[in-house]
Amino acid sequence: MTQRPFTLSALAFVGAGLSLGAQAQSTVTVFGVMDAAVRQTSNTGVATNRSVASGSNSTSRLGFRGTEDLGGGLAASFHLEHGLLLDSGTAASSTQFWDRRATVSLSSKTLGEVRLGRDFVPTYVNWGRYDPFSYVGVASSSILVANSQTGPIRAAFSTNPNTTVRANSGVQYLLPNDLGGLEGGVMLAPTGGGTLANGANKVIGARLGWANKTFGVAAAATTTENSLTTAGKFKDVNVGGFYDFSVVRLTAAWRRFDYDTSTQTNWLVGATMPLGSGTLKFSWNQASLEGKVGTTTLPDNGARVLGLGYVYDFSKRTAAYATVSQVSNDSKSTFVAPGGTSGMAAGGSSRGLEFGVRHNF
Amino acid sequence: MTQRPFTLSALAFVGAGLSLGAQAQSTVTVFGVMDAAVRQTSNTGVATNRSVASGSNSTSRLGFRGTEDLGGGLAASFHLEHGLLLDSGTAASSTQFWDRRATVSLSSKTLGEVRLGRDFVPTYVNWGRYDPFSYVGVASSSILVANSQTGPIRAAFSTNPNTTVRANSGVQYLLPNDLGGLEGGVMLAPTGGGTLANGANKVIGARLGWANKTFGVAAAATTTENSLTTAGKFKDVNVGGFYDFSVVRLTAAWRRFDYDTSTQTNWLVGATMPLGSGTLKFSWNQASLEGKVGTTTLPDNGARVLGLGYVYDFSKRTAAYATVSQVSNDSKSTFVAPGGTSGMAAGGSSRGLEFGVRHNF
Amino acid sequence: MTQRPFTLSALAFVGAGLSLGAQAQSTVTVFGVMDAAVRQTSNTGVATNRSVASGSNSTSRLGFRGTEDLGGGLAASFHLEHGLLLDSGTAASSTQFWDRRATVSLSSKTLGEVRLGRDFVPTYVNWGRYDPFSYVGVASSSILVANSQTGPIRAAFSTNPNTTVRANSGVQYLLPNDLGGLEGGVMLAPTGGGTLANGANKVIGARLGWANKTFGVAAAATTTENSLTTAGKFKDVNVGGFYDFSVVRLTAAWRRFDYDTSTQTNWLVGATMPLGSGTLKFSWNQASLEGKVGTTTLPDNGARVLGLGYVYDFSKRTAAYATVSQVSNDSKSTFVAPGGTSGMAAGGSSRGLEFGVRHNF
Repeated sequence: MTQRPFTLSALAFVGAGLSLGAQAQSTVTVFGVMDAAVRQTSNTGVATNRSVASGSNSTSRLGFRGTEDLGGGLAASFHLEHGLLLDSGTAASSTQFWDRRATVSLSSKTLGEVRLGRDFVPTYVNWGRYDPFSYVGVASSSILVANSQTGPIRAAFSTNPNTTVRANSGVQYLLPNDLGGLEGGVMLAPTGGGTLANGANKVIGARLGWANKTFGVAAAATTTENSLTTAGKFKDVNVGGFYDFSVVRLTAAWRRFDYDTSTQTNWLVGATMPLGSGTLKFSWNQASLEGKVGTTTLPDNGARVLGLGYVYDFSKRTAAYATVSQVSNDSKSTFVAPGGTSGMAAGGSSRGLEFGVRHNF
Repeated sequence: MTQRPFTLSALAFVGAGLSLGAQAQSTVTVFGVMDAAVRQTSNTGVATNRSVASGSNSTSRLGFRGTEDLGGGLAASFHLEHGLLLDSGTAASSTQFWDRRATVSLSSKTLGEVRLGRDFVPTYVNWGRYDPFSYVGVASSSILVANSQTGPIRAAFSTNPNTTVRANSGVQYLLPNDLGGLEGGVMLAPTGGGTLANGANKVIGARLGWANKTFGVAAAATTTENSLTTAGKFKDVNVGGFYDFSVVRLTAAWRRFDYDTSTQTNWLVGATMPLGSGTLKFSWNQASLEGKVGTTTLPDNGARVLGLGYVYDFSKRTAAYATVSQVSNDSKSTFVAPGGTSGMAAGGSSRGLEFGVRHNF
Repeated sequence: MTQRPFTLSALAFVGAGLSLGAQAQSTVTVFGVMDAAVRQTSNTGVATNRSVASGSNSTSRLGFRGTEDLGGGLAASFHLEHGLLLDSGTAASSTQFWDRRATVSLSSKTLGEVRLGRDFVPTYVNWGRYDPFSYVGVASSSILVANSQTGPIRAAFSTNPNTTVRANSGVQYLLPNDLGGLEGGVMLAPTGGGTLANGANKVIGARLGWANKTFGVAAAATTTENSLTTAGKFKDVNVGGFYDFSVVRLTAAWRRFDYDTSTQTNWLVGATMPLGSGTLKFSWNQASLEGKVGTTTLPDNGARVLGLGYVYDFSKRTAAYATVSQVSNDSKSTFVAPGGTSGMAAGGSSRGLEFGVRHNF
């Protein structure tokens, strides 16, 4: 029976909620990731800090998802996903419990999917997949994206949640799977009222790409308007691709954020190599800033992140991992690896090291 | 195997928690509703607002419930239900995660059920079932109940959570199912200390009705005392009924809220008609206010809501729906459909329109 | 099929998350406790209060846990546990949703377990198991531990969460099960940055004991440093044991908290007796304080709690229970049973009474 676990999963939950017509094929699945690591972060000029970190290989989470086959190639589905911190037992977001995703969809095998709710923006979909460190941990490409440095992101969102990863109130159309490798979608999200702190952004985005097993390339763009973007739209565009040489899989991506007179340009180069019972990972990230925010000129505000890691797979679901990283700043910037003591002076460097365990279920 | 999903559901969870005696029959079920819609709300004199709304056909939720057969007709059961907003991934209540229900019960097939915990008050049980729009969405009867207008509800609760729908700390006795159509129960809820903002209300309520497949009628009353009700009890009484003519099912209900010298009277008339692969729904709601709150005289503070909707059933669990509504105010009142821009002047009207998808699991 | 529920539980969830290698044996379990009671608490000189209380026999909770057999005696596992209040539907902790436990582990049958995340501290593991009332309800030994009285706990943590029960960011090593009755473990938790209100404590603790079915004894010690412990470490040591005479099972434990110049010493004696279809429970708790906190001298700040209860088992999973307790204070202290009206004068006494239902799933 172990060869057909998914079928049983489907049947096991069918009784929930409502009695079910004979034709309905249904699955509801509880899933998640539990990931914790011991971390050490050293920032120039301040004390080294040791901590227990959550989600350094893959964000710790608990989710519920399900699909109902409506017949004729049509399906209804939902996806609820909650991020959590294993070190403290807290929700990853203090206000948005289902911060990672909350969507309901109608989809057709031939026509594609209409999806409503909170989800990734197209530019993040097109960025996260090229980061060998999955946008988490001490070598994450997020170090140079979602941060509090002066630049277009901070200018357009201040310290409120930004749309570089996700947006509320998305209305999405996603292409069907069987288009010979073509993939993509569009997202429209109305402001909907409320405050920027609660995610009131008007978002328009799209993504288009092509991929097979060995090669893929895609481009995406997202624009955001909110109560702070009085000088025009916040623009987020990127292009990325991968090539799998079997001995090594290479990825590269370029992303630019624009707002008013400021620009931030990020580069990401990644490599993953099968090695022993696991995978060796490498990434190089760079952020360059140009223009001005208010009276602050941005050149000399860039940074670079080098990351190296190894993931040892105990099984398809469980792994141990080690990651080391180095963040180097231009003379005016203070990007740091997560988990360090605050107070590093501009131009300093930051080193991160972590050993952890990740378990999928 | 699809014919017996519930049995499998039962077995699938049995291992949880404790080892189990041979006689125990147990079920634990994960259930929920995922419902999202595109909404447009137009209030007189202010800009039309478009948004993505959660739960316009049925409140989006995730729940866990279970029953254990204790033998001899006795059973233990529990019900935990969390309301959520699909548009933002937030909990429906920022303070009460299991806002919809949190109860544990002992029940007997012949003697009825004792239920402890947070649950609907008897007057809501007797109101919500007569609203074709299930107390949610742009045509919801809640527009004229749980609102911030001047009247007995606002006078007795200010902007704190009120007891027009649910109460904390309920001790309930519910009649057994097999009384030839007779149904009902009583609820006692002690204040229990704490603050009104945290639900400290003393509630006494009861409901009694009779129903079969084609006809039913019931009456209920709930009284509430809290730290604001210094002028006596807040009283909530109602009567409702339905008649199913097969081609159309009609419902009607009357509800009155009293506090101090003010009274609010609500009327609800609803109709649902099978049409094609779905259901056509219509409702008319009216609220009239009388008396005074402080120095404010309440006549001319009433309103009316007309609602029309169609629910297309893809299956027993999944539907698409469209709803349109119009809210008309008396000269001094500002009742509005949900989702609009704030700031409508007194006496204005509000129009709501929404298209959505609802999936039960 | 009811004889093998756990196997089915395992299979039913296997499909979640990832496809699964043929050798993997996996279980994921949804589990919980739903417990509510009617409570009356009478404190000297203030009005008696009646309330509906959650978790008076066993804390109401919902959890998810799982294990994956990695082969060769190695296993990966996780445990997520959320405390909740059935009376109001709120989370037990407003900030830490998974307040009871959030851990991921790698374990070996012969070498033991490494566990990362939020969990019990060793001294609580060694205390809670000797309390017949499981540290909850009107007769709980917690009345004399986690409270707001003047003493070493308050001095070291003020009103922030303390480490007398749990700690964030734990790195634990736990002995394997098959050591002929020997049991224990060590916990290290780095401060990790952040604030004391968010659990930033540096914790070092250990526990060692020996037990079989009829007799056991164990000792534990935990030290905590945080932003308030400027006068040295907060120390928490205890010793406890049990003896099962079959007609009665006796437990006894001693615990001392030290900080700066103040000391609190707690004693616990418990007895549980099978009686009819249930269990009779008795406990006596005493707290004595010595030394000074600031200019307050602590003698005359102690208290005693007597508790008597009966748990009637409907099944292995469901029970009804009744508990009565009396808290007696020294001339300067104000320890009280939970649920009473505030404002009791120093030296008063407090009586608690509760009747409830507890259902495990």
